[in-house]
This record gives sequence, C-alpha cells and structure tokens, in this order.
Amino acid sequence: MSKAEIGLIGLGTMGAALALNIAEHGFDIAVWNRTASVTQGFHASAGELAARITPTETLEALVEAIAQPRAIILMVPAGAAVDEQIAALRPLLGPDDLIIDAGNANFHDTNRRTRDATGPFLGIGVSGGEEGARHGPAIMGGGKRADWDRVAPILTAISAKHDGEPCANWMGEEGAGHFVKAVHNGIEYADMQMIAEIYGILRDGMGYTPDRVADVFARWNDGPLQSYLVEISGKVAAAVDKKTGKPLLEVIVDAAGQKGTGRWTAIEAQHLAAPIPCIEAAVVARNLSSRRDARAEGERLFGAGPVPMGDAVPSEAALESALICGKILCYAQGFEMIAAASEQFGWSLDLPTIARTWRAGCIIRSAMLDDMATALAEASSRNLMFADFFTRKIQDSHADLRQVVCAGAAHGIALPALGAGLSYFDAMRTARGTADMIQGQRDYFGLHGFERFDGRKDQHGPWAG
Amino acid sequence: MSKAEIGLIGLGTMGAALALNIAEHGFDIAVWNRTASVTQGFHASAGELAARITPTETLEALVEAIAQPRAIILMVPAGAAVDEQIAALRPLLGPDDLIIDAGNANFHDTNRRTRDATGPFLGIGVSGGEEGARHGPAIMGGGKRADWDRVAPILTAISAKHDGEPCANWMGEEGAGHFVKAVHNGIEYADMQMIAEIYGILRDGMGYTPDRVADVFARWNDGPLQSYLVEISGKVAAAVDKKTGKPLLEVIVDAAGQKGTGRWTAIEAQHLAAPIPCIEAAVVARNLSSRRDARAEGERLFGAGPVPMGDAVPSEAALESALICGKILCYAQGFEMIAAASEQFGWSLDLPTIARTWRAGCIIRSAMLDDMATALAEASSRNLMFADFFTRKIQDSHADLRQVVCAGAAHGIALPALGAGLSYFDAMRTARGTADMIQGQRDYFGLHGFERFDGRKDQHGPWAG
Repeated sequence: MSKAEIGLIGLGTMGAALALNIAEHGFDIAVWNRTASVTQGFHASAGELAARITPTETLEALVEAIAQPRAIILMVPAGAAVDEQIAALRPLLGPDDLIIDAGNANFHDTNRRTRDATGPFLGIGVSGGEEGARHGPAIMGGGKRADWDRVAPILTAISAKHDGEPCANWMGEEGAGHFVKAVHNGIEYADMQMIAEIYGILRDGMGYTPDRVADVFARWNDGPLQSYLVEISGKVAAAVDKKTGKPLLEVIVDAAGQKGTGRWTAIEAQHLAAPIPCIEAAVVARNLSSRRDARAEGERLFGAGPVPMGDAVPSEAALESALICGKILCYAQGFEMIAAASEQFGWSLDLPTIARTWRAGCIIRSAMLDDMATALAEASSRNLMFADFFTRKIQDSHADLRQVVCAGAAHGIALPALGAGLSYFDAMRTARGTADMIQGQRDYFGLHGFERFDGRKDQHGPWAG
Repeated sequence: MSKAEIGLIGLGTMGAALALNIAEHGFDIAVWNRTASVTQGFHASAGELAARITPTETLEALVEAIAQPRAIILMVPAGAAVDEQIAALRPLLGPDDLIIDAGNANFHDTNRRTRDATGPFLGIGVSGGEEGARHGPAIMGGGKRADWDRVAPILTAISAKHDGEPCANWMGEEGAGHFVKAVHNGIEYADMQMIAEIYGILRDGMGYTPDRVADVFARWNDGPLQSYLVEISGKVAAAVDKKTGKPLLEVIVDAAGQKGTGRWTAIEAQHLAAPIPCIEAAVVARNLSSRRDARAEGERLFGAGPVPMGDAVPSEAALESALICGKILCYAQGFEMIAAASEQFGWSLDLPTIARTWRAGCIIRSAMLDDMATALAEASSRNLMFADFFTRKIQDSHADLRQVVCAGAAHGIALPALGAGLSYFDAMRTARGTADMIQGQRDYFGLHGFERFDGRKDQHGPWAG
C-alpha cells in the first residue's frame, strides 16, 4: 500500500470530520487516536472513504504510514494536550516533517510553540464547527509561509469555497492564524448578541410570536443581512419543541454558555489598546445572562424589565437597518483590532484576505464580508467606517440605529451591543470630545500634564505649584 | 543616634512624600535612594522633619540604620525594579525583617513575590497621589495578617482619616491589596468618564459655558454626589488659563492619557468573568479620545457629532440623579468583581472594609462610600443593587438615567459609560432575557446543548441528528 499524503492525530468530533473531508477530496490520510477502539470505529464507519484512510495503532505506525516529508495535523484539545502530543511526536519525525496544530489554541501558545519548535510547525484556525470541518471550513493559517505552501493544496481543497475561491489562506507568521480565529470568535459573539437584542425588541417591545420573529429573520436573510447567523436565527425561532409542541424559544432557558473565546478576544484587545466595545458588551451580556436569580430579584425590585413600545415601536425596516449599522461598526472594531495586532507583532496581516477567508465556511460568513473585502482593499484607512462603500452604508443607517437604541433605552430593553455600537459611532464622529475634562482631572490630582491646543505638551493647570 | 523605626527605598515623588508623612507622624525613618544626591537633596529640604530622617548612602547603611526586626518600604517603579531591589536587599536582612512593596505593582507580581519571598513580605496599594502620600493616603494592605499588624501602627497613623477612622486596612492574603487598588483605579476611570459625559451634555447639549459647568459641579458637591472627583471637576471647569485668559477647558486637548491601570482591571474582570461594563466603556473612551484625526474625519463624513438638545434637554436635577444612578451601578460592578476575586483566590475580602478604606485619602473618596460600607455590611447580596439603601436610591433615580441616556443617544452625544450602566441595569432587572436565542444559535451551529425550563440539561433542537 502506498503511503498517505497526510496524517491526523485525534479523532474527536472535529478531527474525525476533518479526516473524512480530506479523504473525500482524494487525499490518502493516516489517522491515529490515543484510544485504539476510536480509531477502529472511525475507520469502520467511514464507508467508501475507508479506502483512503489508514488507521494506525501506535504513533510510530502513524508516522511510518505517511510519505516524507510528512505533514501531520493535531486535533487534540487545546492546552497541555497539544504540548504533550508534540513532545511525543517530534522525536519520531524527520527534520522536514511538519506538525500542524489545527485545534483552538490560544495564539500566545502558538507563538511559543513556533519559537520552541525543533522542526516545521503551523498553527491553523479552523472555523465552522463539525459541519464545516466535514464539508468545508474556513482555515486561517499561521506560521512560515513556505510551510503553509506545502500543505496549501490539501487545505484549500478541503476548505469552504466562495464563488469557487477557497476560504483557506495564510494569515501571517507564528500565531497569526489562531489570533485571527480568536477575533473571528469575538465578532461572532457580538453578531449573535446584536441579533438577540433585535429579537428582544421584536418579542418584548413589539409582542411578536416566535413564528413572526422567524419570518422577519428569514426575510432579512434575503437582503443585505444575508448571513449564516441571521439564517439560523430564523430557523431557531421557527423551531418547534418535539416534547411540548411549543415554540423552541419558549423552552430554552435564557442563560448563555461560553467556551471563553470571546473573553480571549476582549483580553487581547485590552493589551492592544484596541477598542472593541461591541464585543466586550456581548461578553458581558453572556455573563449576566447566567445570573438568572439576580435578574429575577432585579425585576421584583425595579419593575418588569421590558415594556411594550406602543407607538414608539420602530418599523421592521428600521430594525433591519439598525442591525446593519451595528454589524458594520462591530466589524470595523474587529478589523481595527487585527490591524493593531499586525503592527504590534510585525505580522503584516492583510485585512482584505481575512475578510475573504471569512466569506464561507465559518460561523460569521455573510454576504457583507465580500463587500468588506473589496472595501478594505480599496480604502486608505483600516477602519471600515472610512471605507467608501461602508461610509455610505453607515450614512444610510445610523439614524435607524439611533432610533432603535433610543427606543430600547426608553422601554427598558437592554441593548448593550447595539448601544455600544452607537456610542462608538458617536465618539468617532465627534471632533471635539470631552476628554479635556479627564485630562484636567488627571492633572489636578496627579499632575499628569496635558497637551494644549497651541501644541504645547506636558502643561499644567493653575493648581500646579 | 537611636535606630529608625522604619526604612524607605526610593525617593521619587511618591516615596519622598510618604517619607515626610511618616516623619511628620513622629516615626524615625531611614531613607535611601540609588542616586545619593537625591537622598541628600531630600534630607536638606525636609525642614524641621529632617531630624527624624536618617539619610543613608548605601543599602547596607540603610539596613544598619533600622531597628530590628526591620520594616522597609519599597517605593520604586513597578516591575523589574521591584524584583531587583528585593534581590539586592533580602540578603542583607534578618529572617524576620519585612519588605513592603508600596508601589503600583500588578497583583499577579505581588502574588508571585509573596510565594517566592524568603522572608516576610507585604504588597500594599497606596492611593491618593503625591498629595495623599504626603498628607494621608488610603492604604490597602496585602500579605500575611501578622506582618500587616506589625506595621499597622505606622500605616494607620499616616493614612487618611474618615471621622477619625484610619483609611488603612488589611485586605487579604498575597496580592489582595494591590488587587483592590487596581479595582479602585478601574472605578476611578468610570467615575471620571461619567462626569465627563455629563459635562458633554452640559456643554454640547445645553450650551453651558465652563463657568456654568463649574457652578453645577460645585453645587452637586454639596449634595449626594459629594466627592473628590466632582469637587475637582468643578475646579477644573472654573479654572482660567493664565496664558490666554480663556477657560482652561477650552485650552486642553481632548485626548486622554492613561497609565494602563484601567486596562489591568478590565483584563482581570475578563479572567474572573465579572461584568464591569462601565469601566470597560471608560477604557474604550480613553482609547478613542486619542484618535483625534479619525474623529475629525468622522465628523466630516457623518455630520457634526452632538447637536443641541432644544426642548429635550434634561433638567439639572435629572442629570444629577442620572449621575448618582450611574455611579451606584458602576460601584456595584466593581464590588462584585472584588467579590468574584475573593472567591477565586480564596482571599475572604470584606467589601464593607474596602468601602471604608476608600472613604478618604484616595481619588474616588466620596460621601457615598460611607453609605456603601454600611449597606454592604447589612446586605445579604454582594451586589449594591440589592442592598436596601442603594436599592431605594436606584428606584429613585433610574428613570433619570434612562432619560439622560435617551437624550444623549437621540442627540449624538456619546455616553458610553452611562449607557453601559443603563444596559447593565436593564439586563439585571429582566427576569427573562434573550439568551435563549443565543443558546439556540449555539446549539444549531455547534450542538453545544441548552437547558430547558423543565430542568433538563444538555438538550438539543430538532436539528440534532
């Protein structure tokens, strides 16, 4: 039997799906899992793809089964397991053999592993969940460009396609791929939260049933908001609970879980001094959602939260437009954060390439990302607000975002992410802000000094001795 | 000459002020600075306090000049300098000699230094700037309680007093003192930002001159908002620029600096999953304030930011009430973050003690902190929203916060921190939130599972296979 073109370690949900995807695209793959029965079970259930899959029972056998120079994908849980797997694997490999960590690594770990690697190493972010891994994920590559190029034929083949263009690209050196994936996840948090906020207005402010909510999202998915998340929001709202026959949304407890990826993004944004208020608001919202007892007590003490909006109700068109505006502002923040990281880490990340990579396969895929790729390529600014196409979009929609945020605030409907988007927008279009007061305070209590409009720096108020 | 009761290393602004404060309270102190001329200059200018101060020219001489068991305060720049100073000092000391880091250490460093210490070690947060250090700072102690007790007579003597009660207290083990100081600084950011936002409404929405702004803050400082920050905001607004004769606020560039302490707080809050949206918003606002060119471009593209409010203008009473409400909500977040840290690190931090410590000497000192100390001592919840006195305060004021946030949103005046406060409040009083949609989405794309209202966990929607 001829040797496999690639190997894969870790046949959990994501690893198994990726292996089948690789086999389906005509590549011979050798696989290994710590538990031999998992490997056997995987192979036995691979159907006609089994012929392209070589199951192995030891790490040595795996390495032996792959053609040189080897490439081996790790799909093991992020963290210590990756380090342990690398430590076990590397001694068995030749100097040109490539290890690819395709798990959800923290990019700092990927930076470290790249530095410490005694042979070729890539860290790639894979987005799209099990479905994506099986039938076409978005792939964000990090590490040496030459190493990426070696496996690009396989990774682009198995990736999602947008108009035939593969959504698998090299992002930059070291942990750049995992970094971009983290920002993707942060944007995902904000995208989901903004949709949930609009759902709140429809449900609590306008009294829509889940059916009508489903209808709204389904219609929006045919317009500028066309996106996987809007699409599935419609499907979630339309779903009926099998046990009770009730709308599923009436059955699901309103406490959101999280795996910490939004938190990572928020922490890195702080380190980079990159403002991502919409993403931060989304993380806060998830944390608060889990405090159900406190929220019930709050409602008891401070009156029912949302109140119907009556005449103040925004039109569906205004809600759609507000969501468009909020989404653009959130992506503007995310892309600027990536640009800040690129500068900080010397990565030369290319924003249009990133937008193109996200157009298919990943959770935040949307029609708008195609426009973002074009707009960012043409713009002189790295902020989407100042890229012509989106400048016009915001000009057309910010009044609606303003109306919706006002209506929410007036009627007790929490709109943290949309509200943060509006605050960001208003701050970013106010030439003369109010930080003069903050500088005055800082100088008063700490003699921190301020700049004057006449250009003099490190000046002090009359309180200085 | 008899030996000194305490030693101090580092005669920068803060160290020199603290040394004078200690001498003034009748304690003999030995001091040392890396640059001998600084030590000499300090001693020469100490006036009648010089008699209590022993200047020393070497580290050995400093150690020799202090009575055993020794206590030595480090006032050197946070970071590597502290580690280097400890490394140089410790070998000269006896096993019972105590090193006290009174600089602005990151509490993780203090945790590490406590663990690695080969002798007694305290990390104490000192707040109040130069003025506080000289005449009475708030002091937040961390480390072993017994070590704190050894130096408590000196530290309480030199600290600020509130109704005769010293604002110097032991917070908890390890880095607890520096941690509480960090949260203090985060709250300070939000406090300042909310004041700046109200200033924005007065200036841009209501057309107030700096004089009238000064008047408003001065009056509020006689009421429930009595606080150092409101007081100095009035003074900043009243100040006249010596060079031009213009109001100082018209001379100061609206770009706020920062030393990173707000950022630390935001990062730790993410690690603790403790929502502090008002503080996060304040950090974002500082970052955005520095983007003056982008903001000018934004104003050009999207129209002048703030527009006069005309008839929609809130009354001064409503603004005062909104600021009260925002402030309470911001402190509620800060105290909950401290409670979360206490749980996480096993520190048994006492919230009322912390509120009492902040009542005088530090930047956020205010009348309200006395009420907070009382309310937190009586409350069964660690969230101020649910402490009777503040529950009533919020019941009386949230409608005003709502009105002000709406007015800001409607008129393009960015109110990120007040807006985040309102969103937090509304989320915390909404028994049934909208995270059911987020859980539905997460289950749809990743089979993450959700809890049902009938108590069943890890359930899936009909899309699950």
